[in-house]
Amino acid sequence: MRRLPFSSDYMEGAHPAVLDALIRTNMESTDGYGADPYCAAETAILEACGCPDGMVRFLVGGTQTNALIISCLLRPYQGVIAAESGHIAVHEAGAIEAGGHKVLTLPAQDGKITADAVRGLTEAYYDNEVRDHMVQPGMVYLSQPTEFGTLYTHAELAAIRDVCHEYGMLLYVDGARLAYALGSAANDVSLKDLAALTDIFYIGGTKCGLLFGEAVVMPHKDLIPGFFTMIKQHGALLAKGRLLGVQFGAMFGVEGVAPEPGRLLYEELGKTVVDYGQRIRAKLIERGLPLYIDSPTNQIFCVYPDAELAALGEKVNYGYMERYDADHTVIRFCTSWATRSEDVDALLEIL
Amino acid sequence: MRRLPFSSDYMEGAHPAVLDALIRTNMESTDGYGADPYCAAETAILEACGCPDGMVRFLVGGTQTNALIISCLLRPYQGVIAAESGHIAVHEAGAIEAGGHKVLTLPAQDGKITADAVRGLTEAYYDNEVRDHMVQPGMVYLSQPTEFGTLYTHAELAAIRDVCHEYGMLLYVDGARLAYALGSAANDVSLKDLAALTDIFYIGGTKCGLLFGEAVVMPHKDLIPGFFTMIKQHGALLAKGRLLGVQFGAMFGVEGVAPEPGRLLYEELGKTVVDYGQRIRAKLIERGLPLYIDSPTNQIFCVYPDAELAALGEKVNYGYMERYDADHTVIRFCTSWATRSEDVDALLEIL
Amino acid sequence: MRRLPFSSDYMEGAHPAVLDALIRTNMESTDGYGADPYCAAETAILEACGCPDGMVRFLVGGTQTNALIISCLLRPYQGVIAAESGHIAVHEAGAIEAGGHKVLTLPAQDGKITADAVRGLTEAYYDNEVRDHMVQPGMVYLSQPTEFGTLYTHAELAAIRDVCHEYGMLLYVDGARLAYALGSAANDVSLKDLAALTDIFYIGGTKCGLLFGEAVVMPHKDLIPGFFTMIKQHGALLAKGRLLGVQFGAMFGVEGVAPEPGRLLYEELGKTVVDYGQRIRAKLIERGLPLYIDSPTNQIFCVYPDAELAALGEKVNYGYMERYDADHTVIRFCTSWATRSEDVDALLEIL
Amino acid sequence: MRRLPFSSDYMEGAHPAVLDALIRTNMESTDGYGADPYCAAETAILEACGCPDGMVRFLVGGTQTNALIISCLLRPYQGVIAAESGHIAVHEAGAIEAGGHKVLTLPAQDGKITADAVRGLTEAYYDNEVRDHMVQPGMVYLSQPTEFGTLYTHAELAAIRDVCHEYGMLLYVDGARLAYALGSAANDVSLKDLAALTDIFYIGGTKCGLLFGEAVVMPHKDLIPGFFTMIKQHGALLAKGRLLGVQFGAMFGVEGVAPEPGRLLYEELGKTVVDYGQRIRAKLIERGLPLYIDSPTNQIFCVYPDAELAALGEKVNYGYMERYDADHTVIRFCTSWATRSEDVDALLEIL
Repeated sequence: MRRLPFSSDYMEGAHPAVLDALIRTNMESTDGYGADPYCAAETAILEACGCPDGMVRFLVGGTQTNALIISCLLRPYQGVIAAESGHIAVHEAGAIEAGGHKVLTLPAQDGKITADAVRGLTEAYYDNEVRDHMVQPGMVYLSQPTEFGTLYTHAELAAIRDVCHEYGMLLYVDGARLAYALGSAANDVSLKDLAALTDIFYIGGTKCGLLFGEAVVMPHKDLIPGFFTMIKQHGALLAKGRLLGVQFGAMFGVEGVAPEPGRLLYEELGKTVVDYGQRIRAKLIERGLPLYIDSPTNQIFCVYPDAELAALGEKVNYGYMERYDADHTVIRFCTSWATRSEDVDALLEIL
Repeated sequence: MRRLPFSSDYMEGAHPAVLDALIRTNMESTDGYGADPYCAAETAILEACGCPDGMVRFLVGGTQTNALIISCLLRPYQGVIAAESGHIAVHEAGAIEAGGHKVLTLPAQDGKITADAVRGLTEAYYDNEVRDHMVQPGMVYLSQPTEFGTLYTHAELAAIRDVCHEYGMLLYVDGARLAYALGSAANDVSLKDLAALTDIFYIGGTKCGLLFGEAVVMPHKDLIPGFFTMIKQHGALLAKGRLLGVQFGAMFGVEGVAPEPGRLLYEELGKTVVDYGQRIRAKLIERGLPLYIDSPTNQIFCVYPDAELAALGEKVNYGYMERYDADHTVIRFCTSWATRSEDVDALLEIL
Repeated sequence: MRRLPFSSDYMEGAHPAVLDALIRTNMESTDGYGADPYCAAETAILEACGCPDGMVRFLVGGTQTNALIISCLLRPYQGVIAAESGHIAVHEAGAIEAGGHKVLTLPAQDGKITADAVRGLTEAYYDNEVRDHMVQPGMVYLSQPTEFGTLYTHAELAAIRDVCHEYGMLLYVDGARLAYALGSAANDVSLKDLAALTDIFYIGGTKCGLLFGEAVVMPHKDLIPGFFTMIKQHGALLAKGRLLGVQFGAMFGVEGVAPEPGRLLYEELGKTVVDYGQRIRAKLIERGLPLYIDSPTNQIFCVYPDAELAALGEKVNYGYMERYDADHTVIRFCTSWATRSEDVDALLEIL
Repeated sequence: MRRLPFSSDYMEGAHPAVLDALIRTNMESTDGYGADPYCAAETAILEACGCPDGMVRFLVGGTQTNALIISCLLRPYQGVIAAESGHIAVHEAGAIEAGGHKVLTLPAQDGKITADAVRGLTEAYYDNEVRDHMVQPGMVYLSQPTEFGTLYTHAELAAIRDVCHEYGMLLYVDGARLAYALGSAANDVSLKDLAALTDIFYIGGTKCGLLFGEAVVMPHKDLIPGFFTMIKQHGALLAKGRLLGVQFGAMFGVEGVAPEPGRLLYEELGKTVVDYGQRIRAKLIERGLPLYIDSPTNQIFCVYPDAELAALGEKVNYGYMERYDADHTVIRFCTSWATRSEDVDALLEIL
């Protein structure tokens, strides 16, 4: 029997608009390694981000993007500040350390860190008499939404940015699920805001409707000297680079590949997905199941009684997170661009 | 005006059978990171390679694959022997060195190295009184076909394998264009032979009909402890791993995705492609244009007079290789699964 | 005016017996890179450690030793467990991460970690469903004495060793100040115990009477294949290796360099040094100055009122550690092989 | 029986003036990690180099110095140009590659490379259409004297420097045996010239009279941001940094440690050593033994008949280099600050 698919947001292929663009362009012959007309999706993305003089580079996956960017931007003696629940701190198999850098973790509240905490860690470093024997904080890594679906507000991001500037650190935002931040009613951070507040961020494609792909946005184009060669060196340069341009082009209204020129599908598609998530959240609250973390996006975390978990698992493919206590487990329900309305209805009935 | 596309074999999207498999499976919901039913293409590949107890892992691109495998298999004090024209020695932006290892280059003849040369380098190392201050050769890297389209014979591979065994080195074959070796009349090395002769090799997808993807074949499954985590750490783990399984499944006759169950499209498709290449070769010879290297596969290299190059370039998208002398340039004509018969005819008329 | 020297244990040159050995052997001509007769100090050390079939390699400094050993012994996807106050976690400028590995920190109690905590972290890893995306604990790093002068008991070490064995992890002990553990009345862990309990440890020279130098002891000689070349690659191979052999020879009773053949100066010299430390400790307690951490060795940490710090600083060169609160600072008094009895008396009068 | 010691220049301890300085300062108490008064040898060295606003940092050994400097100065996508016989290319166990960088080798003539060859390699890179997939030359590495004892002239260095400037590359000179260049009648490159011509170089101590130690000279002090922390991270920071300051101080006339304040022993001591070498060279020529490479410094290489080698070896400790042909071996006679006049006489009689 088919189980309702709510375990993650990368379980299906591509959004129909994206797949269609790939099909229509399949037999065209173009140059490789990004030197093709479709990588002009860059222009559309920069326009959407309000930084026409910036630069966009397309990569394949999130861990690859994080490891590459951090390794390109830090000096060898610097580390990156992140939430202890941050993806780079936990679930990237030590990719940041493999690139030579320490992840300087801060306790997280709802998956988020604060400007005060960043300032605290950084001041402690600069106040330390033997700081020359220590790793210098050189960058702050955030994810928007976070690994727990929560959102940084514009004010929170601006405060962290201010601390970064004060101490000569860069601010980098991991937007693996950015479409689901943009689609949340609770969100007050636009693409243009991200471009204005950060030194570099990426617009996630893999979890937001593409077969694969992430678009790195640098509001200032000279941020990383030799970036192309660094991408190649990291094994992150896709031979058929146009596959990324075509897919992001479909999402950002590029004529010839998008269903409708100028329409920013990426900014739209999150709304319904988040609505689905919030309906699940409401039902859990109604049902009296405690939320593990209260998320305003597409990932809903709750504390589920073990006694009922097997029954749930027969009907629903949910995401296992961790043990909560002797009798409860933290699980996740995750919606995506591929979630069907009728599956949400069915899930709500089961819960 | 459309120029005839002969510059490379990664200019188009995917072979229709592959694209079709992606379309048909697009909305299925599967687990990520290779834990999906389609990654069972592994079984079909192992069977085709005659090593049912081996292991296959799917990666995205060639440089990524080379860097990852070499970094997984060498000890930190070891280097990898390669032809000075080998892809890892020249065109991977120092990815092997970035992973900590020296590429120990040997002069190449037609893009190939010999067992004698490998033995010479290795013996010189072991004979050296201060070898403990030097990089130890730990692996031999070959490409089949080579970067110049030439082929190692079964006997040549076996001889190199023998030297490897004698000195405790591993043998790794880069098969980025393997389909075009398999499709050559001059080839006497089958997939089964590669599995029998090497410690590890990869079956190239990107240049052989897939959107992207390379299948790493390890005849002995325990070759690399922790390989999954290493893949993740290198940013080489595709979230939607089934995209790789589906594409290779279409190529290796997997029921449900392949056009015809059991039919090894990968072993077939090279034949026509190589025939196209050989027609171009024959025409160049007839025309009296010297071959730079005589290749029996899909890449044809010739020495072209500069005076005629601009005219050629108006009609044909050829590959620039390097300057030959003051008046000549080495160029490449490359055919692929996407090459059309009428384009070959048109090219032959132009030459 | 000369300030009383109590800031650290690496402020002077070498113990007279060591200096004398260097002077006497200065003009002898020997082979380099450890291939000299004096590196036979290895035999004396192995005998003192009760592992005659082991191997000793001499290195120059502590951070170098830690980074090299950890990088030699971990697989790329593994990390090293350490106290959050461990030297490798804080004061080695990210050397472990620069070598590619995450330091998996545990909260420390008096600078120590427990077998239970090690087990907890390790079990959590093996219980995690997505552990393949995470760094695997591959080694436990301890320091004896710890960075805060405290000691692991034999029972504590044995318990940690048991957890290591259970989970296939190596146990490595950093003995930068090992002589001051051996000299403490509170210590129940001998050199032979360390050899029996650990996979690898080092006997610190730099802080224990040598100009410089650390002796890495491997109870089983085959622990690290290619170790010599790894040492060279890390820039850790001293050209005049005999300088290390001569110095350790003087400490471990080697005929011709030691003041008295067979006498283990290294095991003796700590006693007086620790006695000096303990006299300072007693005085602080008597005076009512709270100990920050209660150490039974040569480093004494106390919480000092800021109001009196300037006055102290005029007469005493103490070690600054960190701010304690608005009005207090944590400082360290450190004795060493070079400490003079009359300086201790003078310090006690000042306190 | 004692064999005449001519195998290398790091077989003895320290020059008496250096040893004496260490003895006299042994029991002084100073701060660690270079924060001691003796590291003011920096001032004397900068003065000798005519770059008072530069910076000197002291390290322990040559491979360490090369690996650290190259890793500090290259961007990750850059490589270092060196002679194929250069120390970093052959005898440092892959330390440069372990730091992530390719050594771009050029054929050497008498151990040297030419400005033309450097320009050729660099131009070929910049002319290559796919250079973005290749390692960019970012630095030139030379040794003065070379590994074969030969010398770059001022004109040769200036020409190489010009090419470096033209292509934005740094020029780094390895002066492991610099005293023996300075002591050669054939030399026209002073310390001041090196400071004027290079971006960074090091004054070798280990082979030139110190127990150990190399002084890195940066004519412009801001060349390497975070250099101290990088030194620490590489395990290259000596705890008792004053040992390096004291030794170099003795060599560069620092009051209180040098035998004679202001006297530059380092610039003087090579003369006699080179004279000894040249006497050996003259005898070999007289005797009709072919020089392998004609060196004007302290290393003399000749082609020796195997039939006589055993007899020679009984009386002389020479350096084995490599096999020359079936009946001959390349060997080295090496003099040093420790060479005794009577040993040279004895050797000349034997030859």
